[in-house]
Amino acid sequence: MESGTSAKSTSRPTKVHQSYSFDDAVGWRRWRALRPCLGMYHDVKRRLPYYLSDITDAFTYRCIASTVRMYFVNLLPAIAYTLDMYRQTGAFFGINEALFASSLAAVVFSIFGAQPLTIVGVTGLISLFNFTIYDIISIYDVAIYPQFMAWVGIWAAIFHWLVAVFNACDYMRYVTDFSSESFGMYVGIIYLIKGVEELANEFTASRSNAAGFLACTIAILYFGTVYSLEKLGSSTVWKAGFRGFLADYAYVFATVFWVGFSHIPGTIQQTHIERVPVVDAFQPTQPRSWVIDFWNLEGRWIAVAIPFGFLVMLLFYYDHKPGGFHWDFFLLGCTTFVSGILGLPLPNGLVPQAPVHTDSLTIYETTVKIIPTSEGEQTEIRRPIVHATAVVEQRVSHLLMGLALIGTMTGPLLAVLHTMPAALFAGVFFVVGWGSVSTNGILHKAIFLQREERFIQRDEPLLAVRRRKIVLYIGLQMLGVAACVAISHTLAAVGFPVLIMLLIPLRILVVPRWFTLHELQVLDEFTATNDIVLASLGGMPQLPEHSRAEDWGLERRRSETRHGVHRQRAGSFQV
Amino acid sequence: MESGTSAKSTSRPTKVHQSYSFDDAVGWRRWRALRPCLGMYHDVKRRLPYYLSDITDAFTYRCIASTVRMYFVNLLPAIAYTLDMYRQTGAFFGINEALFASSLAAVVFSIFGAQPLTIVGVTGLISLFNFTIYDIISIYDVAIYPQFMAWVGIWAAIFHWLVAVFNACDYMRYVTDFSSESFGMYVGIIYLIKGVEELANEFTASRSNAAGFLACTIAILYFGTVYSLEKLGSSTVWKAGFRGFLADYAYVFATVFWVGFSHIPGTIQQTHIERVPVVDAFQPTQPRSWVIDFWNLEGRWIAVAIPFGFLVMLLFYYDHKPGGFHWDFFLLGCTTFVSGILGLPLPNGLVPQAPVHTDSLTIYETTVKIIPTSEGEQTEIRRPIVHATAVVEQRVSHLLMGLALIGTMTGPLLAVLHTMPAALFAGVFFVVGWGSVSTNGILHKAIFLQREERFIQRDEPLLAVRRRKIVLYIGLQMLGVAACVAISHTLAAVGFPVLIMLLIPLRILVVPRWFTLHELQVLDEFTATNDIVLASLGGMPQLPEHSRAEDWGLERRRSETRHGVHRQRAGSFQV
Repeated sequence: MESGTSAKSTSRPTKVHQSYSFDDAVGWRRWRALRPCLGMYHDVKRRLPYYLSDITDAFTYRCIASTVRMYFVNLLPAIAYTLDMYRQTGAFFGINEALFASSLAAVVFSIFGAQPLTIVGVTGLISLFNFTIYDIISIYDVAIYPQFMAWVGIWAAIFHWLVAVFNACDYMRYVTDFSSESFGMYVGIIYLIKGVEELANEFTASRSNAAGFLACTIAILYFGTVYSLEKLGSSTVWKAGFRGFLADYAYVFATVFWVGFSHIPGTIQQTHIERVPVVDAFQPTQPRSWVIDFWNLEGRWIAVAIPFGFLVMLLFYYDHKPGGFHWDFFLLGCTTFVSGILGLPLPNGLVPQAPVHTDSLTIYETTVKIIPTSEGEQTEIRRPIVHATAVVEQRVSHLLMGLALIGTMTGPLLAVLHTMPAALFAGVFFVVGWGSVSTNGILHKAIFLQREERFIQRDEPLLAVRRRKIVLYIGLQMLGVAACVAISHTLAAVGFPVLIMLLIPLRILVVPRWFTLHELQVLDEFTATNDIVLASLGGMPQLPEHSRAEDWGLERRRSETRHGVHRQRAGSFQV
Repeated sequence: MESGTSAKSTSRPTKVHQSYSFDDAVGWRRWRALRPCLGMYHDVKRRLPYYLSDITDAFTYRCIASTVRMYFVNLLPAIAYTLDMYRQTGAFFGINEALFASSLAAVVFSIFGAQPLTIVGVTGLISLFNFTIYDIISIYDVAIYPQFMAWVGIWAAIFHWLVAVFNACDYMRYVTDFSSESFGMYVGIIYLIKGVEELANEFTASRSNAAGFLACTIAILYFGTVYSLEKLGSSTVWKAGFRGFLADYAYVFATVFWVGFSHIPGTIQQTHIERVPVVDAFQPTQPRSWVIDFWNLEGRWIAVAIPFGFLVMLLFYYDHKPGGFHWDFFLLGCTTFVSGILGLPLPNGLVPQAPVHTDSLTIYETTVKIIPTSEGEQTEIRRPIVHATAVVEQRVSHLLMGLALIGTMTGPLLAVLHTMPAALFAGVFFVVGWGSVSTNGILHKAIFLQREERFIQRDEPLLAVRRRKIVLYIGLQMLGVAACVAISHTLAAVGFPVLIMLLIPLRILVVPRWFTLHELQVLDEFTATNDIVLASLGGMPQLPEHSRAEDWGLERRRSETRHGVHRQRAGSFQV
């Protein structure tokens, strides 16, 4: 997440105006809500000086590479989520809606966003949200689903605006890895389940077992291809540039190859596996006009939509983490409003796409760190260390990507989409889901607990924490994850943002009673640690455990000293 | 290979009687052929004193674990090769023949072998050999195939006995990793191809695409399961004992799970994938008596069988590498003779089963090597080093495994075999084939060439060799591999042992002209380096490049100093 927000800091002086803060204010000025728009004003004021350079900085190769890569990394998961949503909302949300929503968000945020690298689009969670509401509505009257969804969007937009205007985004700074990791694990598990569901659907939809098993084969091999290419990219084989190329375009290569594979004449082609369903260019999937007749909804249903709108806002609040929080959250309200009345899936902050976008614009340098040992000459250990030397921060790659998405809504490119087997998107779910689970801090701590102690390096900070405390910590996290996963398969699924949000007060108010300050400093870290982000959020949060920012995240800090920064891959989630 | 032959040396004094050697002899005594049976006599004399302890040493847990593991590691590939041979020899060689041949070899070698850990059984190469002869014979008269094969066996047996009696096994000591690695690579590639062919067969044999694609899914996931379990086994997670347990029984767990999976009621069961074809207990697959009427073959066909018999001997010569070479090769002649007249696939030395057998009996200890660095306190590097502390060398586990194979020929256990999907054996081919390719020295050198030089540790011996010399070296090896793979798909496939054998004179006579002695010492090593093995082969070979044994295999030596010995996994081939 961090990397989606901190870009310009690596190429610009990091001195940040601490002009926006309530912590040192006195009297009525201490109350956020009494000074409306202050956060938005400062966000815009902080960014405006860079607007020109955000365009002129774009004329580099990295900007082109980034556009190509982001197009695939944004499009493929969006289609995957949409296939799922399409089936489960009576074909209301289709490919054209997803493309429209993605491109709308890309154009708006690239031009007006305070943090232009933040990618906003269609997520798996909004898909879950939309079809759960469909299930609820269809108990009463499925015909009002479009209007009801429009009102959910309208209410959500209103809540967004309220939050942005009254500076309530500041509370985001209390989010720590405790809840971020839980959320990442939850999302990863849901995606893996979605991948399996997608394959199971192939058996029923095509009514052919051959198609089902072929779909399984393609999905597994697609996963293996992306995974292997990304592994190769982080090895020390070949030149750094070529390795980066392989890893950057892992999705592109894998997609082109396996789409081609699914069309090999003979047995494979004759199996007729499911393809991505498309309709005419620029048309809604359902026979309707783009603007939903949201005015034709009974008042009581409009009222029912209020809590749903609030839940959407809560989810988006948690999911959106740009540098200019207040302003961008206001913008997100605008896209939510437009998407709502057009019957599009509501776009929100995309992870891992946002950090991957920053990664695709980062100029990395791998150097070798030579550590002499006591074993004698020529036995020194040579360890690759990755440094980020600069980020090409600009608005152009994001805008071009948005325009490419609009282009995809034209007839010829829709025809290309239609050649893609649905099975491939089960593979996408596996890549994204496994990426989220395997890079998750909860899993890392669990593996630490399982490792033989004698092989653990002595400077590992987790060694300073008693084992049962680590068990308790990840146990609390997994409790949250399990609760979320469990309700995701019921009509209560729309409530999962509440569960996720509850982890924040749990962490701030309850958890400190069970752990010492030092234990928490090792186990946890503030998710927003970057100066630019904190400037937007009103500075470093004041916690019951008073301490400085440098004292936190000891584990991550140690890893970065030893191995350098981690590159963000499409398959590596970090919420 | 090494580990299949050197067992007792770790628990016994390594002083070996150098009484058998022609190198220092003078006059007519220098001629091997003039002193028949000398090698066999010394082999038996060397081993006999240990015979009692080979039985009494067996009462340990390792012996039980070894029996279970070897049963699976021997049985599964044997069935895999037999499925292939069954289809391609007009169903002449079936499961019962393979079981009979495996158990015959196990019983004979466990009781009479000079090196009781050497596993002998059905290999993929004899399968290739048998069906190529079938293709050749069926051009003329397919009815004489059984008798012709019997005569190939008889002639091969005679050649075995001649080689053993006239001490010709000594030439084995000239084999270096140059040809061993080529052979390993060739075998690996052939097995991977066989895996694909096995899956392709599923489509035609079951005439159902669903069965074909389900087979692909099972084979890939079976491969993934064994591979992941073995990876986990060599990690530092969990206690050493539990890790070893996972890795030891990786095949067992994967097989039980995926056989079960293939019987899940519903879609999977209804797909009716191919199962292992079995016949009645203890009966030949064809309606015939066990003894082939080899006397009913025209004289000219008996003569034609002579070169084929010689080729079999050549293959077995190359493939068999025990401690008591002369005596065991004589024994192998006996099993070849019996198998020939009974119409069984001729058993020969099994790789990786033989080294895996040693591994399964080895008591390993993993210690931590602490390397202080100059980075300050607590930054020392902790590296796991694996030591082999003892080998439970005995004859009992081998014998029990043979008896279990006989047991498998009974009705109830044949019924169990019949529940196994053929697709699983495609997975076995992938595991064994990929194991052979991925651990191959040719691939390691190729990867070395591709690595970024700055990340290579300075004490890497390959750095002392010019890059184009390494390219030339592995180029020559790959030429041999490519030639073998190419002819394997033609009727000339029976000639591949000749090609493999030609690599030995190429290495000894031609290669030294293009490389300096030191380059060869880094790149190459004698395949037989163990004192016990060399004692049987008449001592260290005298090469044009005079040098001591310690000067060879610099690369392997360095790796063992740094990381300890490598454990032998079922999936890791080392011919």
